[in-house]
Amino acid sequence: MITTDTSKPSALAMVPFVSVENMMKIVHAIGAPRMMADIASYIEEDFKRWELFDKTPRVATHSKEGVIELMPTSDGETYGFKYVNGHPSNMARGFQTVTAFGVLARVDNGYPALLSEMTVLTALRTAATSAIVAKQLAPEKSSVMAMIGNGAQCEFQALAFKEIVGIDTVHLYDVDPAATEKAARNLGSSGLTVVPCTSAEAAVAGAQIITTCTADKQFATILTDNMVGAGVHINAIGGDCPGKTELHRDILMRSDIFVEYPPQTRVEGEIQQLDDDHPVTQIWQVFTGAHPGRTSEKQITLFDSVGFATEDFSALRYIHDQLPKVGHFIELDLLADPNDPRDLFGMVQRASPSQLETEI
Amino acid sequence: MITTDTSKPSALAMVPFVSVENMMKIVHAIGAPRMMADIASYIEEDFKRWELFDKTPRVATHSKEGVIELMPTSDGETYGFKYVNGHPSNMARGFQTVTAFGVLARVDNGYPALLSEMTVLTALRTAATSAIVAKQLAPEKSSVMAMIGNGAQCEFQALAFKEIVGIDTVHLYDVDPAATEKAARNLGSSGLTVVPCTSAEAAVAGAQIITTCTADKQFATILTDNMVGAGVHINAIGGDCPGKTELHRDILMRSDIFVEYPPQTRVEGEIQQLDDDHPVTQIWQVFTGAHPGRTSEKQITLFDSVGFATEDFSALRYIHDQLPKVGHFIELDLLADPNDPRDLFGMVQRASPSQLETEI
Repeated sequence: MITTDTSKPSALAMVPFVSVENMMKIVHAIGAPRMMADIASYIEEDFKRWELFDKTPRVATHSKEGVIELMPTSDGETYGFKYVNGHPSNMARGFQTVTAFGVLARVDNGYPALLSEMTVLTALRTAATSAIVAKQLAPEKSSVMAMIGNGAQCEFQALAFKEIVGIDTVHLYDVDPAATEKAARNLGSSGLTVVPCTSAEAAVAGAQIITTCTADKQFATILTDNMVGAGVHINAIGGDCPGKTELHRDILMRSDIFVEYPPQTRVEGEIQQLDDDHPVTQIWQVFTGAHPGRTSEKQITLFDSVGFATEDFSALRYIHDQLPKVGHFIELDLLADPNDPRDLFGMVQRASPSQLETEI
Repeated sequence: MITTDTSKPSALAMVPFVSVENMMKIVHAIGAPRMMADIASYIEEDFKRWELFDKTPRVATHSKEGVIELMPTSDGETYGFKYVNGHPSNMARGFQTVTAFGVLARVDNGYPALLSEMTVLTALRTAATSAIVAKQLAPEKSSVMAMIGNGAQCEFQALAFKEIVGIDTVHLYDVDPAATEKAARNLGSSGLTVVPCTSAEAAVAGAQIITTCTADKQFATILTDNMVGAGVHINAIGGDCPGKTELHRDILMRSDIFVEYPPQTRVEGEIQQLDDDHPVTQIWQVFTGAHPGRTSEKQITLFDSVGFATEDFSALRYIHDQLPKVGHFIELDLLADPNDPRDLFGMVQRASPSQLETEI
């Protein structure tokens, strides 16, 4: 544990770092569909021990352009947090709307154990969460998903639902045909039957699962009441901040609503349109069996998903577990770890290029 | 702004990273005393525009072994946060009690602009803060500082007070003589007259400034009332969490007390021993001139310092400004920045080592 060369960082000081480039290498080494299925297993496992987690609302710093958030959580052994921004105006300026990175740390000594990009990883965990929840709630033998909104999350959703739920067909619709073309092109060799549609109505026709993932910040109505028939599962992931919703209120009134963490979803999700005491089911209770989930063929189930810190925690935990097997990381000396913990100054002093103490 | 090779990260995706090794190189390039004086200028500048800052109490995750905290703040243009742990039991197990890293980001687009180690940097900023405050509050021509507690922060304090306040002598005392020996050795060529003492009483004799920086977690009494004469300045930096104090309550009652951010200090500082409405002065008001600071030779001034997010922000801002001049950083592709912000999946897909789209 202690190195003899006190001017060099000890192993304790090193934190594995997964860059975007390395995350993409990990995706290619494992395969995106299998990786999302594996992450979904971690998410399911953590939902099942939900009550263990230290759950805090996100810590948001708002500005006129957007928001920067810190999302911490802990299971008592491992601590994790994600830094994530949301800037709706970014796309028009050539920036990503959402970028993110995350950290895992040991609770017992507070030392970080992993630093990872999370823009790509969040895309994977969001799709993994949607799909593992749909596996619980969607009608049996669902084969067709309508995908309304063909932005950055679209292809991840389609692949995750194919792998985890078993769909074989995806109907694509976006207000911008270029987005639909992009998604259809990217999914060309996915094994899915890809059907570009020219209206939301056409996309939902024949679909057992409807995923809405649009980026409008205002209250929008991507789905109206008459578009949603009995027995479907709605996976609503685009409504994820105050003032941003996608579904007409009447659809919500006809649905059984499942959420991640009610205090957060009531502010950020579709249910911000409803009374504060409107009944919702916490999705972790479906995973533990405390709630039956779908109970009839005619039922409309709605997963009002805004993303929660435990899902990021699960995804980081998965990546941390893969590193010894797949590699694709570098080590950063993020921590100072002097030989004698009281001798931080001496560590700095001895790092002098000339080794002359007078230099400092 | 946009690269043509879409499989490589664009410049936008790159975030400068300062490792511990590089931070130590920066310290040696600039010199610790000058660096602390420069950081002190940034801290002073940010104290003067205190009202601009978005101030949040730290977000703490407590466990039986310690605490992990996130400390965010923003001046409206730049956002910053520090990750810091505090584990009193770490030292006995060969770990640092406190390790830290920090991030600056652009408020307008949410993109991180700097990732830096902050174990060394926090040591520098803590000493810089103590010294720049003492420059305002300590008796004129203070030349002798008593330094009670000779742990990791000790030498930084001594050098900062020499550089910024102009002391020429430091009296060292620690319950563990090995800590005093370590500090005396490290300060051997500092230009300070270093006087190791065998009691706290001996250390404070003849000192105009008394710095307490011990690590006991319980309520401790490092200074008793009879040890503190009129006219001194007390720089109390060891009392920084609930249940951890260093000064006898009677000293507080005789002192004019200056703090960083009252809602935090009332919980974490020496003043947790006092009534919630005990008058204190916010230190930023001394820097702006709204409060006179020291007003008489006989007055005991007490800086009850617990460390605040703006000080970390100032230190990170300083480091960010130095990088173009001193170098000593690497760039990490922490952000995904696809050519088309909607085409995150395509970016991942095109990063395939074989360039075969079917791979994903």
